[in-house]
Amino acid sequence: MPSHLTAAAQAAPTTPALVVDVDTLDRNIGRMAEAARAGGFALRPHAKTHKCPQIAEKQLTAGAVGLTVATIGEAEVFAAGRVTDLFIAYPLWLDEGKQRRLAKLAAGARVQVGVDSIESARRIVGTGASVLIEIDSGHHRTGVQPTDAGALAREAAELGLTVDGVFTFPGHGMAHAEDVTPTEVRMRAARDQEAALVAAAASLRGAGIEPVIVSGGSTPTAALREDGQINELRPGVYVFNDAMQVALGSCGVEDVALAAAGTVVSVPAADRFVLDSGSKVLGADPNAWSPGYGLVPEYPGSKVVQLSEHHAVVQLPERVTAPRLGDRVAIVPNHVCNAVNLAAELVVVQQGTHMDSWPVAARGANA
Amino acid sequence: MPSHLTAAAQAAPTTPALVVDVDTLDRNIGRMAEAARAGGFALRPHAKTHKCPQIAEKQLTAGAVGLTVATIGEAEVFAAGRVTDLFIAYPLWLDEGKQRRLAKLAAGARVQVGVDSIESARRIVGTGASVLIEIDSGHHRTGVQPTDAGALAREAAELGLTVDGVFTFPGHGMAHAEDVTPTEVRMRAARDQEAALVAAAASLRGAGIEPVIVSGGSTPTAALREDGQINELRPGVYVFNDAMQVALGSCGVEDVALAAAGTVVSVPAADRFVLDSGSKVLGADPNAWSPGYGLVPEYPGSKVVQLSEHHAVVQLPERVTAPRLGDRVAIVPNHVCNAVNLAAELVVVQQGTHMDSWPVAARGANA
Repeated sequence: MPSHLTAAAQAAPTTPALVVDVDTLDRNIGRMAEAARAGGFALRPHAKTHKCPQIAEKQLTAGAVGLTVATIGEAEVFAAGRVTDLFIAYPLWLDEGKQRRLAKLAAGARVQVGVDSIESARRIVGTGASVLIEIDSGHHRTGVQPTDAGALAREAAELGLTVDGVFTFPGHGMAHAEDVTPTEVRMRAARDQEAALVAAAASLRGAGIEPVIVSGGSTPTAALREDGQINELRPGVYVFNDAMQVALGSCGVEDVALAAAGTVVSVPAADRFVLDSGSKVLGADPNAWSPGYGLVPEYPGSKVVQLSEHHAVVQLPERVTAPRLGDRVAIVPNHVCNAVNLAAELVVVQQGTHMDSWPVAARGANA
Repeated sequence: MPSHLTAAAQAAPTTPALVVDVDTLDRNIGRMAEAARAGGFALRPHAKTHKCPQIAEKQLTAGAVGLTVATIGEAEVFAAGRVTDLFIAYPLWLDEGKQRRLAKLAAGARVQVGVDSIESARRIVGTGASVLIEIDSGHHRTGVQPTDAGALAREAAELGLTVDGVFTFPGHGMAHAEDVTPTEVRMRAARDQEAALVAAAASLRGAGIEPVIVSGGSTPTAALREDGQINELRPGVYVFNDAMQVALGSCGVEDVALAAAGTVVSVPAADRFVLDSGSKVLGADPNAWSPGYGLVPEYPGSKVVQLSEHHAVVQLPERVTAPRLGDRVAIVPNHVCNAVNLAAELVVVQQGTHMDSWPVAARGANA
């Protein structure tokens, strides 16, 4: 029986293309909004996933307080779309050009920026942006240790910056670990996040600064939050979901709203076929919890064993018949954020009919 | 001592950005042209690597007979730039829209298309494009077995198509293998390619069709070709090179012409720093022969241990001092084709001075 993604793939004008099943998208947006409301959290979705004003509009209509972005370039795109509350959740290093751009943004919207060093904070002074202190809650990427947050916040405040609070991204909730289940990894990361933010908030208070915003990630940990100090969530991937989230157990295949529509261009063996949706469509991200370069819902047990720029080679399990040349097959990307960033537009499908095309307006807006 | 890539990174107006050292680019283009001429091969570079008319112009000026591309969309971009000889080295499956587009292309240029099935060949009839039979020389992606080439060529010719010859891509010359050196893997793939193309050419002749073109890849096998039947080469990556080619030994770091310029945004530990050039700039491709997500020429022995969309986390070897916040650092992508496809433009640098910006005109032209 064809899935909603197979039906969406059939509706694309040509391939390869990224297709969005809009009913699933709407359901995902509504569910996360409702969960945040029920938990008493402000929802500030990360727009790096979709980079698309039409989807931002749906999120805001569903009750999001504003958007999270990763770069000034993304903020500019959404500000042009009249989003007036933007958090750049990244420890920006502002060169002169970026200082000017940030000041221009902050003149027309509420703009918050992440900081994890006093040197970077110094460059934000005078732009009109306020700051949140970034905390390392276990992902070991950027961010200060929770107990160092107060000192940095104090120094930033002394420079004249408004410190709104603290934030973290518990990205280690997606990392592979031996001898534990994905759910245990997610729960551990959610606990790490809570503990780190509690400690960081206390550190700010100790330095005489009230953390108005205590902000956490992420799609795989959003459902696992415990009562505590967190008052804002910044999930991104949940709008579409992806093969990584399916493998992590944070959603089912029925909750995946986006897939790469490909055409079978070659059937070199009875148990192997080749689609035109390669790494320039899917992205080359691995899936820490599942082998292969994506998930093929129509062929359970199959595996994308080889990915080139314009070829996805799918290996079938025993006794499954390969599709025919010219057939459409959907692949769910491992990491949807990187797949979307490769596309000029999203092909929007409702109940198997191509309804619209939405530009990926912030594609490549990395600076 | 700063390398040419570090100097190029310094010259970028902001970061992240892809910078091209034009002197190295020119040297790479000249060397491959000279090697092809000396070997008596026609050179038809694969333009999927650069997607950039300015670089195509340099290749043609240096003596290339035409360009190779992977999609109709790429062909359209280069045809608009007045390239008149294009080989779409891909077993296209033409829907009606693509049939029309291919016919329009073939009305204004010499256009060849790959085929590996009679079903796909049937859809090319009437477009004006001629065909080459694709052979699997060991990469096990698309392509028929060499001894089956004649039968397919015969059938295609009976449909009225002009069969120009045979082609293959020895992509297994980049695959990791245990207990052998990268050079042995490359040499083995070059021998496989030669044997497959010899057998395929004989198969065509046995079917009464003279293979005018016998066409092989690739950057890592180009220098290893043996005298034989191959009369055309289609390398792509050689214009820029990348961390994969360095690991394979097909070039040195001094031959790398492109890098991602990043800014140090965080120094969370004495032996670790974070750049703003993440997977949305570098691509997420692994390097089969070297761990990590790219090569950092300025810090020998370092490793890009973690890559997020906007973060590259570099781990330094012992007793090496980390750069300071705000410093520029160059990372050589693992797979340059996918990195270039992420950028709207290339920042062109000569002897440390930003000279020009070239649009990646065929970015995302996957269909």
